[in-house]
Amino acid sequence: MSKGLEFETLNENVKKVQYAVRGELYLRASELQKEGKKIIFTNVGNPHALGQKPLTFPRQVVALCQAPFLLDDPNVELLFPADVIARAKHYLSLTSGGLGAYSDSRGLPGIRKEVAEFIGRRDGYPSDPELIFLTDGASKGVMQILNATIRGESDGILVPVPQYPLYSATISLCGGSLVPYYLEETANWGLDVNQLRQSVSKARSNGITIRAMVIINPGNPTGQCLSVANLREILHFCYQEKLVLLGDEVYQQNIYQDARPFISARKTLLDMGPPMSQEVQLVSFHTVSKGYWGECGQRGGYFEMTNIPPKVVDEIYKVASISLSPNVPGQIFSSHLGLTRQPVSGAMYSFPQIRLPPKAIEAAKRAGKVPDVFYCLKLLEATGISTVPGSGFGQKEGVFHLRTTILPAEEDMPAIMESFKKFNDEFMEQYEDHRGYSRM
Amino acid sequence: MSKGLEFETLNENVKKVQYAVRGELYLRASELQKEGKKIIFTNVGNPHALGQKPLTFPRQVVALCQAPFLLDDPNVELLFPADVIARAKHYLSLTSGGLGAYSDSRGLPGIRKEVAEFIGRRDGYPSDPELIFLTDGASKGVMQILNATIRGESDGILVPVPQYPLYSATISLCGGSLVPYYLEETANWGLDVNQLRQSVSKARSNGITIRAMVIINPGNPTGQCLSVANLREILHFCYQEKLVLLGDEVYQQNIYQDARPFISARKTLLDMGPPMSQEVQLVSFHTVSKGYWGECGQRGGYFEMTNIPPKVVDEIYKVASISLSPNVPGQIFSSHLGLTRQPVSGAMYSFPQIRLPPKAIEAAKRAGKVPDVFYCLKLLEATGISTVPGSGFGQKEGVFHLRTTILPAEEDMPAIMESFKKFNDEFMEQYEDHRGYSRM
Repeated sequence: MSKGLEFETLNENVKKVQYAVRGELYLRASELQKEGKKIIFTNVGNPHALGQKPLTFPRQVVALCQAPFLLDDPNVELLFPADVIARAKHYLSLTSGGLGAYSDSRGLPGIRKEVAEFIGRRDGYPSDPELIFLTDGASKGVMQILNATIRGESDGILVPVPQYPLYSATISLCGGSLVPYYLEETANWGLDVNQLRQSVSKARSNGITIRAMVIINPGNPTGQCLSVANLREILHFCYQEKLVLLGDEVYQQNIYQDARPFISARKTLLDMGPPMSQEVQLVSFHTVSKGYWGECGQRGGYFEMTNIPPKVVDEIYKVASISLSPNVPGQIFSSHLGLTRQPVSGAMYSFPQIRLPPKAIEAAKRAGKVPDVFYCLKLLEATGISTVPGSGFGQKEGVFHLRTTILPAEEDMPAIMESFKKFNDEFMEQYEDHRGYSRM
Repeated sequence: MSKGLEFETLNENVKKVQYAVRGELYLRASELQKEGKKIIFTNVGNPHALGQKPLTFPRQVVALCQAPFLLDDPNVELLFPADVIARAKHYLSLTSGGLGAYSDSRGLPGIRKEVAEFIGRRDGYPSDPELIFLTDGASKGVMQILNATIRGESDGILVPVPQYPLYSATISLCGGSLVPYYLEETANWGLDVNQLRQSVSKARSNGITIRAMVIINPGNPTGQCLSVANLREILHFCYQEKLVLLGDEVYQQNIYQDARPFISARKTLLDMGPPMSQEVQLVSFHTVSKGYWGECGQRGGYFEMTNIPPKVVDEIYKVASISLSPNVPGQIFSSHLGLTRQPVSGAMYSFPQIRLPPKAIEAAKRAGKVPDVFYCLKLLEATGISTVPGSGFGQKEGVFHLRTTILPAEEDMPAIMESFKKFNDEFMEQYEDHRGYSRM
């Protein structure tokens, strides 16, 4: 008879989870940091940890909501501008009991209404607050929807490769099957629907029922925006195959100003008209952790459901109720999603290919490491730069990448790049393959 | 071929979940509220929603942490006392990037250290911050541990009846089996270990492997504290049966001053000495939602692990990493768990028995309702008082209860009780059984 919580008796799905963003590289980086080494964390898009300052207005508003007794202080206007005071009073009026009271499990109705207004302005189609659920960050929303969807290992979820490991990890945790479709590096990480069909046929021949398709738009780790034409193809594919489309759109405010604009899956779908606009099931995710805000630590986000049957919405509501409510301060941040209008300088990530010489691949094998993990560990030890190996996101056989955020302060970038280049030169030199090079 | 997200194709475990605290009664109460009826929500322990004021000090500290730029304002001392300013600077120094940066997935190391110090002072035994995980409220921690434990329907979790429906709902969601043990109403809701052994034998004869045992101490919905003798019996039972004990101790600061004091399961275990103190596996849960704080909306909490193998801790850490980090403002509140020392006036809940006359039970059956749900719905419609039927917590066959929080403001209580009594008298009159009475 084994004990309650032994490794051997853990839920097998828990053991199967792979989570590269905070995996071996992150743990080693944390160890080195404890030993006193200066580490540059580029493994998670965490802009405030790398020096980005929070936007003043929403922080002032939340500070006042946390300390509502200050509203009665005669000096309050010395520290808080009038528009902040008005906004804080507005949010407090939407709560029953301030930030310390549980809200409805879907979030405060008044905040959901404001999120719906943001979506309506963005897409040109009104959005229903009753179909918006506020969440502790977008990840929690993705986990709720995948958990509701997946019945067992013969349920498959189409996921782009490379992908953000939230999807592979959550699908493992829910006991489902990840069905990969490959984005084309040579075509600016675009999506080829023929290739998608092949992935589906192959999975079906293995007894998999495809339930849902994930798109990450703009892409993580790749940074690209899907074209409207491509989105229409995807929606048509979901219509034909009766799949729910999970639109991870958390980077919608993180695009280069001169690049292809972001168009939401919802707008594209509603533009297509009936029958598609009334039948294709869509769940769209967004967060305050990205975009102008970068408010990762606040854990605010939402998902919005389109064409999901009311009985299913009820079930998702019921499960959300078990943990009572999303954090209320994070909900206040979520309502600011539509308020701020500064331009953003660029995407958060870079996903360069690394060409590893055969001797490096051999050395990695001897060390019992995946080759790009081997490279990233060496990079970390030599320079303190903490990245994520491409294998954590998925990549084609024999091709290697690493993901780094491009968030460190601008003035630090030249030194970081210099240190990176020096390491790479020495690594290539060491493994004596002078044809090897990195695109970094 | 069915669509992606139809009721018919949902994860069966999701459909099985019952969650009474926000179930039929809550939904009906929300409808009535929308229609303009004044509702007194006593269904969830949500003190701020019922008028409890937040403690000033932690709110001031968090407000300053949210608006750290105020620390540079020459007027800051007009609104914030010096000790608040010092404390806010201290917490900001524990973060890397303030409240807007993801923390480690277990929470900020500096906050975990302070929580460990609180536990150490409480129990007289030092606590290891590496074995403390901060969570978005205690419920999320319970869900993480049960998810890691349960492999399938033949894994059983011992849960007290009556219980808080978080446990039944989460066990359903994870696909496991709830094995009930009954608390004795006639013995002040105490726990009889012989009765526990019978529950275990019966479950085993049905092919169930018992993995863990839940205790809720002080009890929810019943309010009692377990005696040290009873705790020792329980720990000895877990030792013999090799079960992990899940100690839900979220009401540890909610006890009547003249009642039996709260003693933690951890202190009791460590007092017992080896081999038990080194072998019995224990996970203890706590939260800022209860106690002096009642800071439900902030979603702060933690669990602490005792005698859990490092490999298991690593797996739990890995899964926590998928959602990146608990909300950081809630972590600040968690570190205040040990700081505040006001006495508390009483427990949060009352769980009176209701004697339903046979004709009321028949009327309930005709309406397709469980009898206590029928009673609580009638109560809601007549008075606006929203309670939770005892069937949501579990109760013996033929015995009915309801749970109400005793949180409404003291000056409102006489009117609420009057309204309740009037309803009950009329209900009993209507069902023509003049022997029927309520203990309320």
